[in-house]
Amino acid sequence: MSGSTFGKLFRVTTWGESHGLAIGAVVDGCPAGLSLCEDDIQIFFNRRKPGQSRYTTMRKETDQVEILSGVFEGKTTGAPISLIVRNLDQRPKDYGNLVNTYRPGHADFTFTEKYGIRDYRGGGRSSGRETIGRVAAGAIASLLLKEMGIKLTAYTKSVGPVVISPEDYHFSQITENSLYMPNNEAAAKAASYLDTLIKSLDSSGGTIECVVTGLPVGLGEPVFDKLDANLAKAVMSVGAVKAVEIGDGTSVVTSTGSKNNDPFCIADGKITKKTNHSGGILGGMSDGSTLLLRASVKPTSSIAQMQNTVTESGEEVELSIHGRHDPIIVPRAVVVVESMTALTLVDLLLENMTSRLDNVKAFYTEEKNVQ
Amino acid sequence: MSGSTFGKLFRVTTWGESHGLAIGAVVDGCPAGLSLCEDDIQIFFNRRKPGQSRYTTMRKETDQVEILSGVFEGKTTGAPISLIVRNLDQRPKDYGNLVNTYRPGHADFTFTEKYGIRDYRGGGRSSGRETIGRVAAGAIASLLLKEMGIKLTAYTKSVGPVVISPEDYHFSQITENSLYMPNNEAAAKAASYLDTLIKSLDSSGGTIECVVTGLPVGLGEPVFDKLDANLAKAVMSVGAVKAVEIGDGTSVVTSTGSKNNDPFCIADGKITKKTNHSGGILGGMSDGSTLLLRASVKPTSSIAQMQNTVTESGEEVELSIHGRHDPIIVPRAVVVVESMTALTLVDLLLENMTSRLDNVKAFYTEEKNVQ
Amino acid sequence: MSGSTFGKLFRVTTWGESHGLAIGAVVDGCPAGLSLCEDDIQIFFNRRKPGQSRYTTMRKETDQVEILSGVFEGKTTGAPISLIVRNLDQRPKDYGNLVNTYRPGHADFTFTEKYGIRDYRGGGRSSGRETIGRVAAGAIASLLLKEMGIKLTAYTKSVGPVVISPEDYHFSQITENSLYMPNNEAAAKAASYLDTLIKSLDSSGGTIECVVTGLPVGLGEPVFDKLDANLAKAVMSVGAVKAVEIGDGTSVVTSTGSKNNDPFCIADGKITKKTNHSGGILGGMSDGSTLLLRASVKPTSSIAQMQNTVTESGEEVELSIHGRHDPIIVPRAVVVVESMTALTLVDLLLENMTSRLDNVKAFYTEEKNVQ
Amino acid sequence: MSGSTFGKLFRVTTWGESHGLAIGAVVDGCPAGLSLCEDDIQIFFNRRKPGQSRYTTMRKETDQVEILSGVFEGKTTGAPISLIVRNLDQRPKDYGNLVNTYRPGHADFTFTEKYGIRDYRGGGRSSGRETIGRVAAGAIASLLLKEMGIKLTAYTKSVGPVVISPEDYHFSQITENSLYMPNNEAAAKAASYLDTLIKSLDSSGGTIECVVTGLPVGLGEPVFDKLDANLAKAVMSVGAVKAVEIGDGTSVVTSTGSKNNDPFCIADGKITKKTNHSGGILGGMSDGSTLLLRASVKPTSSIAQMQNTVTESGEEVELSIHGRHDPIIVPRAVVVVESMTALTLVDLLLENMTSRLDNVKAFYTEEKNVQ
Repeated sequence: MSGSTFGKLFRVTTWGESHGLAIGAVVDGCPAGLSLCEDDIQIFFNRRKPGQSRYTTMRKETDQVEILSGVFEGKTTGAPISLIVRNLDQRPKDYGNLVNTYRPGHADFTFTEKYGIRDYRGGGRSSGRETIGRVAAGAIASLLLKEMGIKLTAYTKSVGPVVISPEDYHFSQITENSLYMPNNEAAAKAASYLDTLIKSLDSSGGTIECVVTGLPVGLGEPVFDKLDANLAKAVMSVGAVKAVEIGDGTSVVTSTGSKNNDPFCIADGKITKKTNHSGGILGGMSDGSTLLLRASVKPTSSIAQMQNTVTESGEEVELSIHGRHDPIIVPRAVVVVESMTALTLVDLLLENMTSRLDNVKAFYTEEKNVQ
Repeated sequence: MSGSTFGKLFRVTTWGESHGLAIGAVVDGCPAGLSLCEDDIQIFFNRRKPGQSRYTTMRKETDQVEILSGVFEGKTTGAPISLIVRNLDQRPKDYGNLVNTYRPGHADFTFTEKYGIRDYRGGGRSSGRETIGRVAAGAIASLLLKEMGIKLTAYTKSVGPVVISPEDYHFSQITENSLYMPNNEAAAKAASYLDTLIKSLDSSGGTIECVVTGLPVGLGEPVFDKLDANLAKAVMSVGAVKAVEIGDGTSVVTSTGSKNNDPFCIADGKITKKTNHSGGILGGMSDGSTLLLRASVKPTSSIAQMQNTVTESGEEVELSIHGRHDPIIVPRAVVVVESMTALTLVDLLLENMTSRLDNVKAFYTEEKNVQ
Repeated sequence: MSGSTFGKLFRVTTWGESHGLAIGAVVDGCPAGLSLCEDDIQIFFNRRKPGQSRYTTMRKETDQVEILSGVFEGKTTGAPISLIVRNLDQRPKDYGNLVNTYRPGHADFTFTEKYGIRDYRGGGRSSGRETIGRVAAGAIASLLLKEMGIKLTAYTKSVGPVVISPEDYHFSQITENSLYMPNNEAAAKAASYLDTLIKSLDSSGGTIECVVTGLPVGLGEPVFDKLDANLAKAVMSVGAVKAVEIGDGTSVVTSTGSKNNDPFCIADGKITKKTNHSGGILGGMSDGSTLLLRASVKPTSSIAQMQNTVTESGEEVELSIHGRHDPIIVPRAVVVVESMTALTLVDLLLENMTSRLDNVKAFYTEEKNVQ
Repeated sequence: MSGSTFGKLFRVTTWGESHGLAIGAVVDGCPAGLSLCEDDIQIFFNRRKPGQSRYTTMRKETDQVEILSGVFEGKTTGAPISLIVRNLDQRPKDYGNLVNTYRPGHADFTFTEKYGIRDYRGGGRSSGRETIGRVAAGAIASLLLKEMGIKLTAYTKSVGPVVISPEDYHFSQITENSLYMPNNEAAAKAASYLDTLIKSLDSSGGTIECVVTGLPVGLGEPVFDKLDANLAKAVMSVGAVKAVEIGDGTSVVTSTGSKNNDPFCIADGKITKKTNHSGGILGGMSDGSTLLLRASVKPTSSIAQMQNTVTESGEEVELSIHGRHDPIIVPRAVVVVESMTALTLVDLLLENMTSRLDNVKAFYTEEKNVQ
């Protein structure tokens, strides 16, 4: 398998299977001098930790991260940062009956076809646990962004039919409910919807939204490495995401140019936009407005309901998946989408420093060590 | 600017500005032995050529491609293929009044902020003409896919409020109307909607869909280079695209696991799926079903209606954009989305060959020239 | 710091500092189905392990590798392989006096200037211990090459003035002496030379040679990713290497075309070459002959002799470096050069599979799972 | 063929065959705001132009470069710069007898084996003409370096047995003789040596050296993307180069630590080195001293002397290569080595800007457009 690395200058490589010995990531290209300790990462882990509510799995995973390299006396040194989390609660026997059966909606079939071999324990590499490495790296990226005054906020915008409109957003409430919704009332409705699904041994989809403020103008490289293109890849690479939208997203198709164009204006002596249908991106570059993206997450594929499927040897069978599974992926994926957004932004932020000769020249001619 | 290259093994680099001397692309990594001539590319160009109907610009661009390298005696040699199209119909004076004014919805502002300099002629690098290079490369990728029995079909699924349901698709009608819709009746309605917008000096958005049949199982690299992730980047990198969906896309959020999971079954002795909500991708790898993706395209930003905006020096002004502009981008972007899909597929198709040791071993031990 | 990853399809990322908690590597892109266990890697480690003779440091490093991911039931799964070695014998106090002093020949000065911070313990990231990750990955690459019938042999060609001519090579003797020389008599002379240097608190340089047999024709991508170019980078990236030569190397400058050209001939019905001045590479591609490369390794920079140098604050001081240091780097670097060669070859071996349409087509049309 | 792109942030893609319609390069990632016109590139072309003396081919190639994109009103815009040179003097018939015969020392055999097809006209992609693209890009890189006060000087250090010692270097004489040697007397001897070889229908090898002054400290990324590693790849990727040396190069093997270590000292209040055996690189990063590298170039493979070889169909034949060929490659390759050095330096110079958080932070918080 290839493709376990993300980024060009700020590069993250994740590794590890659901029920292997450990899960981890290596972050290469982190600028030197950033204060970093394990607690900074643990805070992010807590947001994706299972066992937080009855809507997330009961698997007791302590998920303690260890920083093995790249940090010296509390600061990053510029060397690759190796992050590791031991898998303590492995219960491979739970998956014994899935050794030869392809779970619908999962990667069992495609993985076996591609590689001829599959670590069937808990989804192996395709497990949601792979995101631990992403979140660990995302925590570091977020610290970097914070240094630049850039702030990310991600939350659950919808659970099944329960959708929150922007006018009802209360960002302070995001951490007040176990679904990470910016509206406690909506969260209560969503919880009741999920309870119904749990009873019917079913699961729900939902929407994650991420907003970013404080971005400078100009992040993103025109043409293929546009900010929105890289974000789309980053977010779509999260398992279960089936759509990525920027700004007004799919609704632009029924809009018109006169409504969808954001007029420029001057506010506080700076060029800004009266509206933000574009979601903070113009021509693939950040435009200084709030960045806004959305991810549509499919319902959890592992359900206890009886399903039709086949075995590796081509036998049609019925399958009911037991074990510890969330009725909805969304709440735990919120921090993953935020992490992928942070990784994308840092990478383009670094690259953007090299866009203009005058900046490059200033950097080197003002340096003290040119000899 | 960086980011003008797409792909890892099948690599495309595009170059050129709207009103520069020429536009082009270099394709590196094309396997040797493919029959290729300029007409193969010209066929693709004809699908994005302006001046085809009253819904596309009247700019008369002959867009004749020239293959400058990489082909010898009608076959690709494995060397990079350089493709060039001279810009014959440059009319920079049309843009004289836009030198210092930022057009809403365009990259003028972000480009200037990022680079400190901007080729203001017709959008420069951010012009739709940049896609000529993509389409030229896409034509080559499509020829390769055809050799493998893989077939791409792209079309306009919606124009403003006029949407075609899958049950009304008639793929044979796609080329029978100037909007590339798979339903002539819907195309007539869409045309009438566009006529209204033209009268009000406005523009429309729309949806492009692309389906791919004949794909082998296993394309895509789990984790970051998932097939859907790479497709999302590819398609979102097309200017004006604001959302990318795979399979059921945004509608998965209101579905449930029991409905959204595609049960596996056996048909004709092969493992297949009863439904295809996943759009042909499981765990980031092609699952052998039809690949289905959708792009939401915003309304043309260049409209003749009066708009509020600012100048480079920070003066608030009113602007009406004249010149040759389509009231909808969608029809001409259909072939671009198809091209980006083809490029993504070929790239992962090549990488997939290296996934298993037994294949690698067979390749080398059956080779005749091992010495 | 960036640049901790090597390879395009078979990708190795190393991490870890000399006296940090651990050292390791992640190998991504290893084909699935390769038998792999920790002992396979341990065998390679033993070849670079310190404390083997009086010419290598007395530091007792057990260097036990642990495979944390990517292997299931004894076979690689295609997932990234995470390899870790805990640092057990950390003695940072040995380096206490070096906190602020720049050791001549080392990266202390450049590292501090670049990053503004430096993990001074034992060279930190620039320590020879970084090569543990390379060797672990190299062991895996070597197993893959072995499956293809490709065999690498690396050895010490010279120690200071003691050089072995090809006619005196006895490859079976390489493991019979602690200097890894293919001639025990020369090794004895070299040992006596080193003894003299040890007495004068000095160190020696030397030459490493690596030969590869069984290579197919055609590895290497013309132009920038030539086989020799990638090998040059791979080998020059090993600390202390100051020159890389292919085939006749530097001696080609005094040769003539009529002598240096290797005439083609037919042997056993196959095209081969009468001589091999080219070292097995023509036009950047393997030519089926024995690949031959050489690396010139500088004398160990850490010497106990008194040296002039400066401190971080710009004070001129005298320095004598005590601690555990080899009087010659070469013997322990032999396996590192071999590992880097193996990594380069595997990477190009995989890429080469995609060079011809007929091969790509055969791969997909003979595949059973095309649907 | 893949591998036609060099660089990570400053990226060059070359294309074109010796006797195709044109040769060219695309440079992506060039910072915006650099003054650039065709004459800037032409100056570099003149240094590799054939027909300059009796030691270079008589082929009359005007080699006029055209800049097709990326420059607007005399300045780079940040967009990819497309450079093209039409091949005017194609004489494919000269190569008629080589269609099926493998020339010793050339890539004919390996190319055919790898790709199954070969553009036999003048070496096709493996021709020295491919370097036109490199030199065009190198000219741009050199202009950037000049803005930073970095100066490259490359020259012929040796021709066959005629070697110039550093104490006899007179850089002003480099352009005074057609061999680009920094010593006219040595050049005269070398010329007489070449005359002898021409008479015997033979060819000579030689050494190119490149020195760079004005480099800041810290260029190069530790581990795999070391400055010396990237330079080694860059220079070894030039056809005919068989060895790359940094600083004292191969001679370090007989040196000792006490002699080879460069003591640090203070001069003019700055940390510097008393000697420069390291060639300006420590731990893979520039150390502020003069960068020094050498390339060993093999004798021209195309010689008029009768040689033994084989045909594609495996027949042993004799071959005498007529046509226009230099008796030595070195003088025309001087500017190519210099170009590859410049490309490597610019790429690492840009990446180095992102090494420290304080620099990244200063860049963004001092920016005016953060909103």
